[in-house]
Amino acid sequence: MTTIHDAPEEFAEDQLAGWTALYADRVRPVHGGVVALPTAGAEPQVAVVVGGGSGHYPAFCGLVGPGLATGAVVGNVFTSPSAAQVWSVARAADQGRGVVLAFGNYAGDRMNFGLAAERLRAEGIDTRIVTVTDDVASAADPADRRGIAGTLAVFKAMGAAAAAGAPIDEVERTGRRCNAATRTIGVAASGCTLPGADRPLFRVPDGHLGLGLGIHGEPGIRDVPLLSATALAALLVDRLLDERPAGAGTRVAPVLNGLGDTTQEELFLLWGRVLPLLVAAGLEVVEPEVGNVVTSLDMGGCSLTLQWLDDDLERRWRADAYAPGYRKVAAPVAALVPATAVAEAAAEATVAPEASAASRTAAGAARAAVTAMDELLRDAEETLGRIDAVAGDGDHGRGMVKGVGAARRAVEQTGREAGVAFVLGRAGEAWAASAGGTSGVLWGAALEAFGRSLGDAADRLTAADVVDAAQAFADAIVHLGGAQRGDKTLLDALLPFVDALRAAVGSGARLDEAWRTAAAVAVEQAAATAGLTPRVGRARPLAEKSVGTPDAGATSMGMVLACVGEVLAARVDDREGVTA
Amino acid sequence: MTTIHDAPEEFAEDQLAGWTALYADRVRPVHGGVVALPTAGAEPQVAVVVGGGSGHYPAFCGLVGPGLATGAVVGNVFTSPSAAQVWSVARAADQGRGVVLAFGNYAGDRMNFGLAAERLRAEGIDTRIVTVTDDVASAADPADRRGIAGTLAVFKAMGAAAAAGAPIDEVERTGRRCNAATRTIGVAASGCTLPGADRPLFRVPDGHLGLGLGIHGEPGIRDVPLLSATALAALLVDRLLDERPAGAGTRVAPVLNGLGDTTQEELFLLWGRVLPLLVAAGLEVVEPEVGNVVTSLDMGGCSLTLQWLDDDLERRWRADAYAPGYRKVAAPVAALVPATAVAEAAAEATVAPEASAASRTAAGAARAAVTAMDELLRDAEETLGRIDAVAGDGDHGRGMVKGVGAARRAVEQTGREAGVAFVLGRAGEAWAASAGGTSGVLWGAALEAFGRSLGDAADRLTAADVVDAAQAFADAIVHLGGAQRGDKTLLDALLPFVDALRAAVGSGARLDEAWRTAAAVAVEQAAATAGLTPRVGRARPLAEKSVGTPDAGATSMGMVLACVGEVLAARVDDREGVTA
Repeated sequence: MTTIHDAPEEFAEDQLAGWTALYADRVRPVHGGVVALPTAGAEPQVAVVVGGGSGHYPAFCGLVGPGLATGAVVGNVFTSPSAAQVWSVARAADQGRGVVLAFGNYAGDRMNFGLAAERLRAEGIDTRIVTVTDDVASAADPADRRGIAGTLAVFKAMGAAAAAGAPIDEVERTGRRCNAATRTIGVAASGCTLPGADRPLFRVPDGHLGLGLGIHGEPGIRDVPLLSATALAALLVDRLLDERPAGAGTRVAPVLNGLGDTTQEELFLLWGRVLPLLVAAGLEVVEPEVGNVVTSLDMGGCSLTLQWLDDDLERRWRADAYAPGYRKVAAPVAALVPATAVAEAAAEATVAPEASAASRTAAGAARAAVTAMDELLRDAEETLGRIDAVAGDGDHGRGMVKGVGAARRAVEQTGREAGVAFVLGRAGEAWAASAGGTSGVLWGAALEAFGRSLGDAADRLTAADVVDAAQAFADAIVHLGGAQRGDKTLLDALLPFVDALRAAVGSGARLDEAWRTAAAVAVEQAAATAGLTPRVGRARPLAEKSVGTPDAGATSMGMVLACVGEVLAARVDDREGVTA
Repeated sequence: MTTIHDAPEEFAEDQLAGWTALYADRVRPVHGGVVALPTAGAEPQVAVVVGGGSGHYPAFCGLVGPGLATGAVVGNVFTSPSAAQVWSVARAADQGRGVVLAFGNYAGDRMNFGLAAERLRAEGIDTRIVTVTDDVASAADPADRRGIAGTLAVFKAMGAAAAAGAPIDEVERTGRRCNAATRTIGVAASGCTLPGADRPLFRVPDGHLGLGLGIHGEPGIRDVPLLSATALAALLVDRLLDERPAGAGTRVAPVLNGLGDTTQEELFLLWGRVLPLLVAAGLEVVEPEVGNVVTSLDMGGCSLTLQWLDDDLERRWRADAYAPGYRKVAAPVAALVPATAVAEAAAEATVAPEASAASRTAAGAARAAVTAMDELLRDAEETLGRIDAVAGDGDHGRGMVKGVGAARRAVEQTGREAGVAFVLGRAGEAWAASAGGTSGVLWGAALEAFGRSLGDAADRLTAADVVDAAQAFADAIVHLGGAQRGDKTLLDALLPFVDALRAAVGSGARLDEAWRTAAAVAVEQAAATAGLTPRVGRARPLAEKSVGTPDAGATSMGMVLACVGEVLAARVDDREGVTA
């Protein structure tokens, strides 16, 4: 609902006055609209004058600026500007190289821009007209179609050509070629409310989407029941692929446009569904735009535009533009290090610090433990998944396997000279990055903490140091996980393990024996979580279903601790060493 | 209403995945959020990690990029991210110079960011916390206040400091100083709807605004009846001026923020009301930001933020930033020619072309006519205003006086060597630019057309040429005005005048006599418009009230034509010449 205004009938003028005051450093107001301030020292360029009714911001005044429109004519809400307004803006925008008037294909706009063009020509100004007809839902014949979000593509193509110094014939031709290569399909979820009105201009039936409904409420193709994002993406993409222009290539510049009330988050989510469909159709996506480019006051809904690029249109689309409502500057992005290079650099930059013999020995044990855990968890994946599926999403086994697998590959890349802090640090990083989800982060942080507690430089590492490391392991999870004993999480296995380990080492047991004793406690306590009701974490939403089944995270923790106990025992037997 | 999603409980993850795919050229996903790709060759910088719940785009991930945040933690909708998420993003964002965690002051965020900070410090990463507390409505004690749109100011200040290479102490101090200097007050017009919900999270009573209502629906100060934009601006500004921080200067960086459903146009309109109040309070406004910076899904409403600048904060606020949801680049704007220089250059660039003696003579008549029209219309201003006020807005007299006054000043600046096309061209331009409104454009275009028809180069100008010029004058108005005879506009005086002038000249009358005869017809026809019902133009909305009163535009047209007739007659009598 449009609620902020003074006299409703002055809404269009009032909003333009506020906008012009806001951007007084880059545009100047003229009767009927605004004109871009020229760039100092730039050669005169063809003027690209766009326009239409108000209520569609950033269309149209928001698109005035270097690399985009030279001027915008701003009519009343949803109403064509008058011929006098068009003439006034075009006259002010003209730099002596002619004017291209560009607007969506609506009867009122055609008439008023047309009258103004006649007048301008009578005054000796070379004036061309480019109408935008991208809305595939509005008519079978492309020439009869309305212009909607595809206006951005056409305006941008012409604005870039004009800014690059192209003569008027080329600017006009670019606009016509871009329009012929641009298709849009939209859906409305709810109507918009005009300033001063107390009800929407039109309504979409509850639980439905108006397919092809126009940006001023013009009738669409049909109402369809509300769709999932996945189904909506398929509907939009399929329809546009059906409308692929003759001779189209494989590069497209998509615009996923929100109509006003639809949140940016919804558009991003939908983009996540649209992109794979475009890729699957063999298309290369070039600088997609997702956001509000042609709105309709507070209307709910969105539209998808595909501009089929050729080399020239691609260059125009990629070109810089800096208008108040559309800002694209290549330099800051081009200067970034690509994500792949960041990942490679991070891997290469990590050089193991010098390590003591004791720490190197412990690192050997850690490597063996991670390897054994990997084998264990691959065998247990299905079991863990089944347990998790009772009240969770069933992905616990998968997550553990991904995490430990990445950790194993990471430790295998560490050299024999590395200490235990370094080795478990790499393991933890890899686990957290690969496992996904909170449990991966907790395992990663815990492994790192274990290693850090032992350190790379200790002259001697005792069983008591391992108890401290186990405590650090648990502390990391407590710090970051926000759970407590009894919440039915992995802590219900881990915390009893640490207590039992401390007790056993304190009473003089050898480390591997103490560990095996404590791990047995952990396994037992993990099984006992079957009697608990989850209070945090993955199983909370279905807490009641969970009772009677142990926690998957506690179960895997018990398994892993037992497995590590076996590794330690084997190493003691083999005299490979664990600690002093 | 939030309608585009798949499984509602995965909304936050799904939207982030779509967003990350969209901006894969500038960010990389990590568990819990995103991290900016570094600029190639740049020195390591302090990491500024921002975050909070989803549903507030561009907060928080939209603010990740050069000059702004280094990373963003993205929680579930309206829910704090977990400590594990914060830790994961902060670890990935850390470049070895420490991490500042920055977020709005909410209990969940304080706890989770706090836990992560402890953990990061335990790992040897210098970690600071800056909470934003800008919402003056949320508590009396500044320390207890919530963080809303002022987060942008604080994040930007720290992001700019970090990008400039400042050490962590300075980045933290900048953030704290900015927060202490930043105040926001908001109003909600309507509640937002969570993904999957079928009703809003909360409601604002119909016809009311929730003053100070929080961005997750937290209780505000009180509900107030819906206000005009002017009253709303006063409410917001007054409240913020009451909260001016101790020691504040006179420079402010305002942020007028939309909550989601509120259109950009409404924000621009409101800005047009806010700006004069700030100026009247003696404040200098620095790079105001008007748009959606912290939204709340599809909530209706807005907030006004004032950041009280010192030199350092001003530098940080003005600095370039290029994040997906916040792009500010100074260079393209700094390169523009200022509006004042454009106007001066336009005035200076106009040099009169060489003119024939006949055209110079006609130019003398035109100058005299414009001077006489100026005197006439100043006398008639009140009368015309009174006629216009019956069914219009009463500004017709004022508009005519402004237009003709500007035209008179313009012709007085033309030299004696100028021809009639040049002189009336300047007059028309000045009239259209100064009068405002459609009637000013029509008068301006018509004067230009009259002069152009006569030309600067004619060897001889006859009465028949003046008839053609009068026809061109009328044609310009018909072309651009879109009205017809009988619509109760100035055409109802002008078109009979042209017909009568043609007839009189055709029957051999001397020009001045023919003009006076035709002008008498115009005056009579103007009076006769009292019987008409307006079909277009200023009086249409109150068409019935208009009957019985002549059209103001037709009346002034009749007056002006009669006045010009007197000028012509006087020039013939004085042998100054009009035409051949």
